[in-house]
Amino acid sequence: ARPRVGYFYVDKGFTNITGDYLKKLKVGEVKSLPIVITEGQSIYEAIVTLFLEDVGTIYVVKNGFLAGVVSRKDLLKTTMGKGNLETTPVDVVMTRLPHIVFVEEETPVYEAIKKIINYQVDSLPVVKKVIVDGKEYLEVVGRFTKTNIAKLLLELAEGK
Amino acid sequence: ARPRVGYFYVDKGFTNITGDYLKKLKVGEVKSLPIVITEGQSIYEAIVTLFLEDVGTIYVVKNGFLAGVVSRKDLLKTTMGKGNLETTPVDVVMTRLPHIVFVEEETPVYEAIKKIINYQVDSLPVVKKVIVDGKEYLEVVGRFTKTNIAKLLLELAEGK
Repeated sequence: ARPRVGYFYVDKGFTNITGDYLKKLKVGEVKSLPIVITEGQSIYEAIVTLFLEDVGTIYVVKNGFLAGVVSRKDLLKTTMGKGNLETTPVDVVMTRLPHIVFVEEETPVYEAIKKIINYQVDSLPVVKKVIVDGKEYLEVVGRFTKTNIAKLLLELAEGK
Repeated sequence: ARPRVGYFYVDKGFTNITGDYLKKLKVGEVKSLPIVITEGQSIYEAIVTLFLEDVGTIYVVKNGFLAGVVSRKDLLKTTMGKGNLETTPVDVVMTRLPHIVFVEEETPVYEAIKKIINYQVDSLPVVKKVIVDGKEYLEVVGRFTKTNIAKLLLELAEGK
C-alpha cells in the first residue's frame, strides 16, 4: 500500500499549493490589454476591430467608462439578421451593465477563473472603480481571458 | 534570508509537480464530446449547430472521418460576405487537412496546452488514427478546449 499512500501525499500537497498560489496571484499581474470601442460606433466597426485585434470580445465605453461588452457570438448572431451593419450602433447588440461580469486588478486569479467558468464567458473586463459626482463608474484597464489561463497553467508546468 | 529560501523551495517543488502531472495526464481523461457536421452541409447549418451546441468550433467529417474545422471566427467572416449561407457548403470556409492541428487521446495534456497556445486556436479535435486500405484517416473522438484547461486549473486549485 505504500506507493499509493505516497501518491496521495504528493497529490494533496500539490493541489493545496496550486490553490494557495492562485488565491495570492492578482488579475493585475496576468491581465492583457483591453480592446475598446466607443458607444455609437457601428456593428461593422466592432467586427473589423475584432478581426484586426484578433480578440474574442470587445468592450464598449461611454465617456471613457465601461458601458457594454460584445462577443464574437453576439456579432455572429447579428450578421445573420437583416439589419444594416454599417448604420446600426453596437449598443443595440452589446450586453450592458449591470449584466456584465467583471473583475478588478486586485481580484485573485482563482476568483477570476471561477467567474469565467460559472458565467460561461471567454473573457472578463478588468476594471477600476471611479467615483464621479458620487456615482460609481468602471474604467476599463485590462482583459482577463481563457488564453491568460492557458498560458498561466503552462507557465506553472514549465516552472517559469 | 531563510523565509526567502523557503519560498523558492516551495515554489520549485510546486512547479515541477504541476509539470509532471500534466505530462502524465492524457487528453482522453479530460476531453469533451466533439460537435460534428457533415461535408456538404451548408454554412447556415454550421452556424445553427454552433449556437445550439454553444461551442466555438465545429468539426466537419467526410465518410465519418475528419475533413475540416470551422470556427466562430471563420463563420463571422463568411456572414460578412455576399454569398448565400443556405446554399453554400461549409467546405468552402473550413480549414482542411493537412492544415488542422489535432491531438490523440494518448497525447499528454501538457502537449495539448502548448499546441493551443502556439497555434492560437480555441480548440483541438481529439482523433483516433484508422488505417483503411493502407491509407490513414482520422476518426473524431473528442474536443480539447480552453474551457477544459480552465476547468483543469480550477480543479487543481481546489484539490479535486
